[in-house]
Amino acid sequence: MIWFEDVEVGQRARFGRYEVTREEIVEFAGQWDPQPFHLDEAAARESFFGGLIASGWHTGAMFIRMVVDHAVAGTAVVGAAGFDDLRWRRPVRPGDVLSVETEVLDKTPSRSRADLGSVRVAGRVLDARGEVVMSLVSIVLYRRRPGAPLGAAAGDP
Amino acid sequence: MIWFEDVEVGQRARFGRYEVTREEIVEFAGQWDPQPFHLDEAAARESFFGGLIASGWHTGAMFIRMVVDHAVAGTAVVGAAGFDDLRWRRPVRPGDVLSVETEVLDKTPSRSRADLGSVRVAGRVLDARGEVVMSLVSIVLYRRRPGAPLGAAAGDP
Repeated sequence: MIWFEDVEVGQRARFGRYEVTREEIVEFAGQWDPQPFHLDEAAARESFFGGLIASGWHTGAMFIRMVVDHAVAGTAVVGAAGFDDLRWRRPVRPGDVLSVETEVLDKTPSRSRADLGSVRVAGRVLDARGEVVMSLVSIVLYRRRPGAPLGAAAGDP
Repeated sequence: MIWFEDVEVGQRARFGRYEVTREEIVEFAGQWDPQPFHLDEAAARESFFGGLIASGWHTGAMFIRMVVDHAVAGTAVVGAAGFDDLRWRRPVRPGDVLSVETEVLDKTPSRSRADLGSVRVAGRVLDARGEVVMSLVSIVLYRRRPGAPLGAAAGDP
């Protein structure tokens, strides 16, 4: 089990493979983000984006699916408090194949909960050419190792 | 049509009504965020959260649905570049009824695109008691009014 104390600042990972389909773009948008450039190819061609693109929230959903499938098992992750600096950098289109890259930025024991710590993880969603389509910084809550000394991150310098 | 020039800093809005159901929580999570506390009541009771909660990305999806249904029509909004400071402040549970509050924080003509401007909008998702369950700052791109003077926001002091 990877506890808060075991997380190493600077640690990198790369995982996931998600094929973006026209059907799923339209289905997600129909339920959550029904704007013409997510729903209809002809309308999308005449839009700012010049063609059908995925909702940014759909890209976020694909990101969290890859994270849950590949990066959460075996960790003491409780959940996420939120995100900073999310940017949709390039449109995501049908046929794109996405993956995720992460890097641990820093970690801080919780001030209010002695059993928790917070880890900031930079995440990037890449397309098949390695271009970044979305980036964000996740604030991830980990449980601290049971019996670890309180008030400081055990194992930290 | 509400162009970039027409957006007023300090402008507030409140809109939307979204009933959160157990079925939708489980369905969204099954597709996008399959963690036990989003999928299974018994597992959720034994989790950190003490009961079934919506995926934070599901709350985000409900937010954007309310925004598209109530706040985008009639505006020159092109899309969003991303958001800052997203925080899931309280768990969202079956039976919650959500709505959205927004406030325009500031606006800036684009440096790279003379026809666009960027507007920062603080958004909050509230439950029926008025408690904030999610907050974020959206970076929204608007088209500038055709024929408006370039290099500055027409109508600004």
